[in-house]
Amino acid sequence: MAKGGKDEELILLDHWVSLFSMRVRVALAEKGITNYECKEENITILGGKSPMLLEMNPVHKQIPVLIHNSKPISESLIIVEYIDEVLMGKSGSKLLPSDPYRRSQGRFWAHFVDTKVYPPSWNIWRTKGETQEKAKADFIESLKALEDELGEKCYFGGENFGFVDVALIPFYCWFYTYEVCGNFSIEAVCPKIVAWGK
Amino acid sequence: MAKGGKDEELILLDHWVSLFSMRVRVALAEKGITNYECKEENITILGGKSPMLLEMNPVHKQIPVLIHNSKPISESLIIVEYIDEVLMGKSGSKLLPSDPYRRSQGRFWAHFVDTKVYPPSWNIWRTKGETQEKAKADFIESLKALEDELGEKCYFGGENFGFVDVALIPFYCWFYTYEVCGNFSIEAVCPKIVAWGK
Repeated sequence: MAKGGKDEELILLDHWVSLFSMRVRVALAEKGITNYECKEENITILGGKSPMLLEMNPVHKQIPVLIHNSKPISESLIIVEYIDEVLMGKSGSKLLPSDPYRRSQGRFWAHFVDTKVYPPSWNIWRTKGETQEKAKADFIESLKALEDELGEKCYFGGENFGFVDVALIPFYCWFYTYEVCGNFSIEAVCPKIVAWGK
Repeated sequence: MAKGGKDEELILLDHWVSLFSMRVRVALAEKGITNYECKEENITILGGKSPMLLEMNPVHKQIPVLIHNSKPISESLIIVEYIDEVLMGKSGSKLLPSDPYRRSQGRFWAHFVDTKVYPPSWNIWRTKGETQEKAKADFIESLKALEDELGEKCYFGGENFGFVDVALIPFYCWFYTYEVCGNFSIEAVCPKIVAWGK
């Protein structure tokens, strides 16, 4: 397993506002990997995507892309799993459990964040009226399911910050925006998730 | 690693028409695992879901669910990966490569099937007019990307039927339906994918 040390070339094609890029940055930080190059992509201006992004992710042409020794990996959760499998880092900690059943459950809940938390979150601050109300209801229902899964644990990963924590934490950074735009309190209905985020 | 033998209890909550259940059945077959119990769920009648399904997949209440020694796993690709990691089977073959970079690429393309092949495939036979034309165009664009990835290989997994093959093969079974409903030829634009399916 590589250490993510001096002999490794690591480049992250990134944008500061991306929830999905943040997962990769958090995973690298959790591993204690700091010696990577972060290339900020211009994702707001039409046609502003760099030749490197188009070459490294020709299928989706989207950030984040992690380039490890010239080989590109796309899709945030797949990148995080790759980091966990390949780069030991200074901390030596693992994001996914070694037990295969618990690993499958980690993948399940990370996938749940992508399919049940992300889509409604988008409509909370981008829409109004009925669509927004539906988005708020769906978002809360999904957070409640996650709160049940979290239970009394410190982290979704148990004692340690793990794969599901990495998947969800970028959304926590947007809770305030959701609350202001949607005029509701997340803490009132999901206190454990808010405590986890803090 | 378990062999999926007599000492293992394996139950699949299934429905014959489900593309996603088929992935699990194909993965088990590829592993040479035949001694599992298949429980057909009634997914067509409202309220017809079995107490076992509601207990084993309380979050999504959907098939497929694989229950291995009383522990449930949901989401077809997560189940397939679990099978690959845990059950050796008679064949002893692996669906995902041992090399972590190639493994990440397998996960990428399987995820691509879920996000870029499945959604338009649905609209080819369920809609008409502009929506159907858009679905056909998106579907073909996605299959072409997969055809590029397949290249001259026998399977997406190389010499052996692998993870991406398992993810995509249920859609091949529907090609004829898509062609009749959409009045187009998949083979005319993606001959390699059709040859792969055959």
